[in-house]
Amino acid sequence: VYYEDTDAGGVVYHSNYLKFMERARTEWLAHMGLELPWMERELALMFVVRRASVEFLKPARLSDTIEVDVEVKALKGTTIIFTQRIRRGEELLITGEVTVVAISATSFKPCGFPALVRERLTQFCLND
Amino acid sequence: VYYEDTDAGGVVYHSNYLKFMERARTEWLAHMGLELPWMERELALMFVVRRASVEFLKPARLSDTIEVDVEVKALKGTTIIFTQRIRRGEELLITGEVTVVAISATSFKPCGFPALVRERLTQFCLND
Amino acid sequence: VYYEDTDAGGVVYHSNYLKFMERARTEWLAHMGLELPWMERELALMFVVRRASVEFLKPARLSDTIEVDVEVKALKGTTIIFTQRIRRGEELLITGEVTVVAISATSFKPCGFPALVRERLTQFCLND
Amino acid sequence: VYYEDTDAGGVVYHSNYLKFMERARTEWLAHMGLELPWMERELALMFVVRRASVEFLKPARLSDTIEVDVEVKALKGTTIIFTQRIRRGEELLITGEVTVVAISATSFKPCGFPALVRERLTQFCLND
Repeated sequence: VYYEDTDAGGVVYHSNYLKFMERARTEWLAHMGLELPWMERELALMFVVRRASVEFLKPARLSDTIEVDVEVKALKGTTIIFTQRIRRGEELLITGEVTVVAISATSFKPCGFPALVRERLTQFCLND
Repeated sequence: VYYEDTDAGGVVYHSNYLKFMERARTEWLAHMGLELPWMERELALMFVVRRASVEFLKPARLSDTIEVDVEVKALKGTTIIFTQRIRRGEELLITGEVTVVAISATSFKPCGFPALVRERLTQFCLND
Repeated sequence: VYYEDTDAGGVVYHSNYLKFMERARTEWLAHMGLELPWMERELALMFVVRRASVEFLKPARLSDTIEVDVEVKALKGTTIIFTQRIRRGEELLITGEVTVVAISATSFKPCGFPALVRERLTQFCLND
Repeated sequence: VYYEDTDAGGVVYHSNYLKFMERARTEWLAHMGLELPWMERELALMFVVRRASVEFLKPARLSDTIEVDVEVKALKGTTIIFTQRIRRGEELLITGEVTVVAISATSFKPCGFPALVRERLTQFCLND
């Protein structure tokens, strides 16, 4: 947690936790070989956040080291529902549920996951 | 909507709508004579976001003029639940429900609203 | 100045003044009928920041009302050099010099200003 | 580089490079045992950015991996002047010079570095 993340209340500004959650989702996808620019370029696929619901239980502070986890709650036709938790050590700070929709990078309309993406997501969700 | 608000998808970055919502709540409070630094200094009162639930229906784009409204759904002991809508002209882009808790600026624990604040909030909610 | 603009030091986070400066430049261009999305769509013209030099003299705080001004110091082949000042009432907080380059929205290479843009910029700079 | 860092131009928003530079300075200080919250609490010492001068040579894009380096150009009574470079592999993207002033966390006035801080900074600057 850097100065940029905090506000005059001395804690992380609330909307910045959504950034931390997206960083974690991006790394999680990249870990499966699904890098965002690659999917946009090769598969004409983009992800957009459709819904987010966040509980701010305890604040994070300057220089805290926090961990953000990513869990897939559901994988449907065009959407992934993630459950995410932000922790400082053992302490649970934030919980959130984020619904992400796959859209076509050309029409910007929701579209089904290409086979390759669906396969990797399914495989990962079953194994983990 | 300025460049700073957008991302490489060409639209407003999702967490920035939460900033727009807070700007609207801040102006709404100031309109009632409840400026944040004044409340912190004089009443030792701060507001923190406890929960936020947002639907991203349609995106806003660079140079769009958008309006953010503020409605009080419930006013309880230490919390205010806001319903907020972001529109571009007639078009509804975003809806959200944001729960804000009043905390003591010294102990950082939830506290009841001081009489003055409660009075103004109640008066406003009844009249409007 | 909203909570989003501040950091745990209780003042505006330094890089956010660059956002305020860009908002002012964007409004200044729009005032001349040069809206950014319109220029990108119709003239295939974008502006990018090439250089910025900022002095942070005094900090702005939560709920401060600040004014950002825009002055053209020089207008060359493909660049505009802006001098900008941020004030709180009479008090000078920040000064900056920002060099902006016109680039083609297709090649992303620097390009001369189209006649229409040059005309409006020149007219404005002479009159003001 | 995540979505949050980019703008509708498809590249990193210019003021965000200043955030990356500060992250690097913060890690650099922490590496010397000079964590910001510790210095504020134990030494009543804070650092503020007094001047920044940045050249934006080439843009960074979504999913780029970039490196930010930190070099001390000068260490005076109350200020440190940093030279910083942002690179993508071998490619130089951004250069900047950032002047940081040590201020008292109580009076917010510039103050000399405490002996401990000066010692560590000097040692590091000589060795490196």
